[in-house]
Amino acid sequence: MNPLYLVVLCGLLSLAYGIWAVISVMGSDAGNKRMQEIAGAIQEGAQAYLARQYTTIAIVGVLIFAIVWWQLSMFAAIGFAVGAILSAAAGFIGMLVSVRANVRTAQAASQSLAAGLGIAFKAGAVTGLLVAGLALLGVAVYYLVLTEYMGFDRADRMVVDSLVALGFGASLISIFARLGGGIFTKGADVGGDLVGKVEAGIPEDDPRNPATIADNVGDNVGDCAGMAADLFETYAVTVVATMVLGAIFFAGTETAAQAMLYPLAIGAACVVTSIIGTFFVRLGSNNSIMGALYKGFIATAVLSLVVLYPVTWYVFGGMDATLTIANGTSFTPLDLYLCGIAGLVVTGLIIWITEYYTGTPYRPVQSIANSSVTGHGTNVIQGLAISLEATALPALVIIAGIIVTFNLAGLFGIAIAVTTMLALAGVVVALDAFGPVTDNAGGIAEMADLPGEVRNTTDALDAVGNTTKAVTKGYAIGSAGLGALVLFAAYTEDLKYFTANSETFTYFQGVGPVEFALSNPYVVVGLFFGGLLPYLFGGIAMTAVGRAASAVVEEVRRQFREKPGIMEGKERPDYGRAVDMLTRAAIKEMIVPSLLPVLSPLVVYFLIYAIAGKNAAFSALGAMLLGVIVTGLFVAISMTAGGGAWDNAKKYIEDGNHGGKGSEAHKAAVTGDTVGDPYKDTAGPAVNPMIKITNIVALLLLAILAH
Amino acid sequence: MNPLYLVVLCGLLSLAYGIWAVISVMGSDAGNKRMQEIAGAIQEGAQAYLARQYTTIAIVGVLIFAIVWWQLSMFAAIGFAVGAILSAAAGFIGMLVSVRANVRTAQAASQSLAAGLGIAFKAGAVTGLLVAGLALLGVAVYYLVLTEYMGFDRADRMVVDSLVALGFGASLISIFARLGGGIFTKGADVGGDLVGKVEAGIPEDDPRNPATIADNVGDNVGDCAGMAADLFETYAVTVVATMVLGAIFFAGTETAAQAMLYPLAIGAACVVTSIIGTFFVRLGSNNSIMGALYKGFIATAVLSLVVLYPVTWYVFGGMDATLTIANGTSFTPLDLYLCGIAGLVVTGLIIWITEYYTGTPYRPVQSIANSSVTGHGTNVIQGLAISLEATALPALVIIAGIIVTFNLAGLFGIAIAVTTMLALAGVVVALDAFGPVTDNAGGIAEMADLPGEVRNTTDALDAVGNTTKAVTKGYAIGSAGLGALVLFAAYTEDLKYFTANSETFTYFQGVGPVEFALSNPYVVVGLFFGGLLPYLFGGIAMTAVGRAASAVVEEVRRQFREKPGIMEGKERPDYGRAVDMLTRAAIKEMIVPSLLPVLSPLVVYFLIYAIAGKNAAFSALGAMLLGVIVTGLFVAISMTAGGGAWDNAKKYIEDGNHGGKGSEAHKAAVTGDTVGDPYKDTAGPAVNPMIKITNIVALLLLAILAH
Repeated sequence: MNPLYLVVLCGLLSLAYGIWAVISVMGSDAGNKRMQEIAGAIQEGAQAYLARQYTTIAIVGVLIFAIVWWQLSMFAAIGFAVGAILSAAAGFIGMLVSVRANVRTAQAASQSLAAGLGIAFKAGAVTGLLVAGLALLGVAVYYLVLTEYMGFDRADRMVVDSLVALGFGASLISIFARLGGGIFTKGADVGGDLVGKVEAGIPEDDPRNPATIADNVGDNVGDCAGMAADLFETYAVTVVATMVLGAIFFAGTETAAQAMLYPLAIGAACVVTSIIGTFFVRLGSNNSIMGALYKGFIATAVLSLVVLYPVTWYVFGGMDATLTIANGTSFTPLDLYLCGIAGLVVTGLIIWITEYYTGTPYRPVQSIANSSVTGHGTNVIQGLAISLEATALPALVIIAGIIVTFNLAGLFGIAIAVTTMLALAGVVVALDAFGPVTDNAGGIAEMADLPGEVRNTTDALDAVGNTTKAVTKGYAIGSAGLGALVLFAAYTEDLKYFTANSETFTYFQGVGPVEFALSNPYVVVGLFFGGLLPYLFGGIAMTAVGRAASAVVEEVRRQFREKPGIMEGKERPDYGRAVDMLTRAAIKEMIVPSLLPVLSPLVVYFLIYAIAGKNAAFSALGAMLLGVIVTGLFVAISMTAGGGAWDNAKKYIEDGNHGGKGSEAHKAAVTGDTVGDPYKDTAGPAVNPMIKITNIVALLLLAILAH
Repeated sequence: MNPLYLVVLCGLLSLAYGIWAVISVMGSDAGNKRMQEIAGAIQEGAQAYLARQYTTIAIVGVLIFAIVWWQLSMFAAIGFAVGAILSAAAGFIGMLVSVRANVRTAQAASQSLAAGLGIAFKAGAVTGLLVAGLALLGVAVYYLVLTEYMGFDRADRMVVDSLVALGFGASLISIFARLGGGIFTKGADVGGDLVGKVEAGIPEDDPRNPATIADNVGDNVGDCAGMAADLFETYAVTVVATMVLGAIFFAGTETAAQAMLYPLAIGAACVVTSIIGTFFVRLGSNNSIMGALYKGFIATAVLSLVVLYPVTWYVFGGMDATLTIANGTSFTPLDLYLCGIAGLVVTGLIIWITEYYTGTPYRPVQSIANSSVTGHGTNVIQGLAISLEATALPALVIIAGIIVTFNLAGLFGIAIAVTTMLALAGVVVALDAFGPVTDNAGGIAEMADLPGEVRNTTDALDAVGNTTKAVTKGYAIGSAGLGALVLFAAYTEDLKYFTANSETFTYFQGVGPVEFALSNPYVVVGLFFGGLLPYLFGGIAMTAVGRAASAVVEEVRRQFREKPGIMEGKERPDYGRAVDMLTRAAIKEMIVPSLLPVLSPLVVYFLIYAIAGKNAAFSALGAMLLGVIVTGLFVAISMTAGGGAWDNAKKYIEDGNHGGKGSEAHKAAVTGDTVGDPYKDTAGPAVNPMIKITNIVALLLLAILAH
C-alpha cells in the first residue's frame, strides 16, 4: 500500500478528534439567558467580520487563481485554491468553536477551575488539531492525487509548482487574516480601553462600554482565527519546502520518494502524539494551570521523540543507509532523526526563553514593573530595552540549531528539523487557542454579572493564556525564521536547476550560475531591500491600529454623548456599530500592507533586471529573501516578547505590587500595555507570514519565468 | 613636491580656522557674574566627566596598545595611539569651546538673534573643522611618515595595518564617548525631567533642580564631545578603508599611489570648502535660522562639486585615463568624480528625508502630535510607527547610491562616494555642534533669570538645533552604513590576498578561497549573529539610561528631602553630587556594551573555527560584518528619526497646538519625548560606531592572523 494513505489516515484522525471535542464542548452547560445573549452578540460579530474578511480575500484570491492558472497551470491554480480554502476553513471552524466555548467556559468556571480549564482547552485543541490535520491532509492528499491519480512523476515540475502554489494559497490567507484580525482586535482593545478605562473610568469588559463586544470579537478573529491561519501556513509551507528540497536533492534516485514522504510522515506521527498529548492536560493537586498545559506539551514532545525513531526506520527501510545528495553530502536516516530531535530541542528552548522574557516571576517583567514607579516614560523605555534584548537568546538558539543540523545532514537536515518543530503545531496551537476562549469567558462573566469568584477563576486562566500566547508567537517566529531558510534554499536550488537546464527553460539561457556572494553589490542591495520590508510593514501596521483605535474612541464618545442613559445603565449601547465600524476599518487597512510582500519580489526582480540584467536580478531577489528574514526575525521577536512583557508587568502591578491597581505605577503600566498591544498582536505576528509570503512569491516567480 | 604636503596644508588650515574662531568667540562678552558662575559649574562638570571618561578609556587603550604592538608591530600600535588621541582631542577641544561659548551666546542673544547665532555657530564650527581637520591630518601625516620617512612601500602591509590600527583607535574612543556621553546626558535629562517637571512641578532648567547643571553638562559631553568622536571615527575609518581598497585594487601599478592619494585629496579640498561655507551662514531678512544654516551647507556642497573636478584632474593627471583594477573592472577619473557627486546627492537626500520625518511642518511629527490627544499610549504607538517607517526612504537612497556608484566604478566607486559624503563632515558637524551651545545658552538664561525675550531667542535657536541634530545623525548613520560596506569590501579583499599568498601568510595555508554565498549556512549564521548585535547593544544601552535616570531621581529626591530650603529658593542644591553620580554611573555602564562589538568578532571567529574550521570561520565572520550593518542601519535610523519626531511633536504642542503646554496632550507628548531621548541620543547614535568597530576589529584580526 502507498504509505501516503497512512498519512491521510492520521490526518483524518485529527478531524475525528475535532468532531469528538466539538460535540463534547457543545454538550456542556451554556449558562443563563444573559450569558447566552452576550455570547450570541460576540458570535454574530465574529462571524460577520470573518465573512467580510474572507469575501475581500476571495476577490484577491480569484484574481491570483486566474493569474496562476494562466501563467503556470490548472493544477497549480487548484493547489493555490486548496491551500487558501483549507487555511480559511481551519481559522473559521476554530473561531466557530471558540465563540461557543467561551460562554460554556464561563459557566464551567462557576463550578471549578478544572472544569473551566477542561472546556477552554478542549476548544483550543479543536483549532490546534484542525490546523495541523488540515494542513497535513491538504498537502498529502493533493500530492497523492497528483502522483497517484494524475500520474505525474514525484519530482515533476508540475508537482513541485502545484505544491508551492498550495503554500502560496495558505500564505495569502494568513497575511490577510493576521493583519486584518490584528488590526480589528487591537483597534478594539486600545480604543475601548482609552475611552472606557481612561476617560469614562469604567472597568474593562463593562457592559456600558459600546466597544466591549467588539473587544471580545477581536480576541476570536485575531488571536484565534488569525493565529490559526498563520500556523496553518507555516506548517504547510515548511512541509512543502522540505518536500521540494527532497525532490531536488535526490532527483533521479529512489531516495527522492522517501525524502518527499518523510516530512509528511513526521507530520502524521506528530498529529497522533498531539492528540494523545491533549489527554495529559489535567490540573494537578497544586492547581497550576501552566503546569497542566505543559504536561500536555511535554507528553507530546516525549512521545514524538520515541515514535519518530520507528517512523524514520519505516520510511527509509533502516537507520544506517547512506543517503547521498547531488552535491556530494551524505548522511544516514539516523542523522535525520537526530535533526528532528534538534528541532524538538529548539522548540523547547524557545518556549523556555519566551517564558523567561514574558513571565511575571523573572527579571525582565519585574524590571518593567519597577520602572513604572517613575512614570510612563521610564516604563516604555524599559519595555523597549527588554524587547530589544529579548531577541538575542532566540537568535543564538536558531544559530545553534542551524549549525548542529547542517553538520548532521546539510540543508536537508535543517529542513527536517523545522518540519519536526512544526509537527508539534497541533498541541502548541491548542495551548494558544485556549487563550481567547478564557479571555472571552472573563468578559462574559463580567458583563453577565456573575459572582466575583467566577471572574477570579477566568482571570487565572486568562493570565496563563497571556504567557502561552507569547510562547506560541515565539515558536511561530522561530520556526518561521528557520522555515524561511528552507524556502531560501529551495529558491537557490530551483534556480540552479533552471540555469543548468536552460535549453529546456529558455528564459534562463545565458543567465549562467547565479552567485549570492556578499561581495556582490546586488546581493547587498537585495539584503537592504529585504531588510526594510519588515520595518515599513511594521510601521504601516502600527499606524493602522492607531487609526482604528481613534475611530473607536470617536464612536464610543458619540454614543456616550447621544445616549446619556448608557452610563447610568438604563440604555443599551449599540455594540453592533462599533463592530461594524472596526470591520470596515480593519478590512480597509489590511490591503496595502498585505500586498507589500506579494509585490516587492516582483518589483525588485524587474527593477534590477532593467538596470543590470537577469543574473544580477536573481542575485538581488535571493538576497532580498534573506534580508527579510534577518531583520524580520528580530523585529518580530522584539515586538512579541516586548509586548508580552509589558502586558504581564501590568498584571504584576495589578496583583498588588508597586501600589497595585489605581496607583501611578499602574497607570504607567497601562500605557506600556497599550503600546505593547499592537506590537505583540498586530505588527509582530504579521511579520511572520510576511517573511514567508515574500519567499514563496519568489519561488512562484521562478516557476512562472521557467514556464 | 609630494602632493601629500598639500593635503597636510589644508588640514593645518582647519586648525588655523579653529584658532581664529576660538579667539573670536572668547573675545565676546561673557555676561554677568551669575551667568559666569553657572557656566563655570557646567565647565567644571564637563571637564571632570571627560577627564574621568578618558582616564577609563586610557586604561583599556593602553592594554590594546600593548596587544597591537605585541601581535602586529610598533607602527600599528603608534597608529592606534594617533587615532585614539586625535579623536579624543577633537572631542575635548570642541567641548572646551562649547562650554565657554554657551554663556557668551546667552549674552549675545540678549542683543539680537543674529549675534546669538553668530557665536553659537562659530563655536560649533570649531568642533566641526577640528573633527574633519584632525582626522585628515592624522591619516595624511601618518601615511606620509610611513611612506616618506620610514621608507615603506605605499601598499606595504605595514602601511595598511598601521592605517587600519589608526582607524581602530578612533573607533574605540568613539564607542566609549558615544555611549558614556549618551548615558550621562540622557540619564540627566530623563531623570531631571521626571523629578523636576513631573514630581516637583518646576520648569526645565530651573536652578532649584539639583540635576539641572548635570543636564547642561550632558549636552556638552554627549551631543558635542560624543558626536565629535563619532564623526571623527567615521571620517578616519572611511578614508583609511578607501585607501586600503585603493592599495589592494591597484596593487603593483602606478595608479596605486593616485588611488591612495585621492580620498585624502577629496578630504583636503572639502576642508577648504567647508571653511568657506561657514562664512555663508548669515541670517537673511526673513530671520530663518534654518535657512541661514542651510546657506552654509549648500555653499559648501556646491563649491565642493566644482572644486572636486580639478582635484580629480590633478590627482589622476586627466579625466579620461583608463584605470583598471585587478578583477578587470575599469573606469575613468571622470567616473570617480561622478561617484563623488553621487555621494553629495545622497547626503542631500538623507538630510531632506530626515528633515521630513523630524520637522514640525510635516505629516510624521503632526501625526504623533495628533495621537497625543488620545493619551500616552497612542502617542508612543504612533511614534514607534513613524520610527519604523522612517527607515524605508533612507534605505532606498542608500540602495540607489550603491547601484549608481557601483555601475560607475565598482566597489572603489562606492568607497569614493562615501569619502565625499564624509568630506563634508566639517560643515555638517558645525551645524550640529551648534545645538548644545544654544541648548546650554537657554539653560543659563533661565538659571540666571535673564529677561524672557533672551530665553525666546535661545529657544528659537534651540528648536533648530533639534532638527540639525537629527539631520546629522541621519547623515552619520547613512554614511556609516555605506562606509561599513567599504570596510566589508576591505575585509574580503584582504582575505583574498592572504589566501592567495598563503606561502607567505602561513596561517592561511589550506584555507582556500573563502566564499560568502548566502547558500552557505555559516554565512547565514554570521548574518544572524551580526544581526543580533545592534539589538542586544541597544537593549543594554536603553537599560543603562533607565538605571542612570533612576539614580538621578533618587538623588534629587534625597536633596529635596534633606534640604527643604531648596524648593523655596533659600538653599543652593548640591549640583556637583548629581554630576559626580552620573559620571560614575555612565562610566560604569559604558564598559560592557562597548566591549560587545570589540569581542564579538573574536568569539565568532574562534567558535566557528573550533566547530567547522578556518574557511567556515572566515565566512561566518565576514557575514557577521554585513549582518551588523543590515540590522544596525535600520535600528539606528529608526531610533534617531523616531526620537527626533517625538521631540518635535512635543515642541509642536508647546507652540499652542492641541491644547498647548499643560494639556493632557502635552503630558502624553512629554512621555513620547522621554522615550525618544535614549532612543535618539544614546542607543541609536552609538549603533553607528558599533557597526564600524565590529568591522575594523575583523580587519585587525586578519592582520594579526597573517602576522
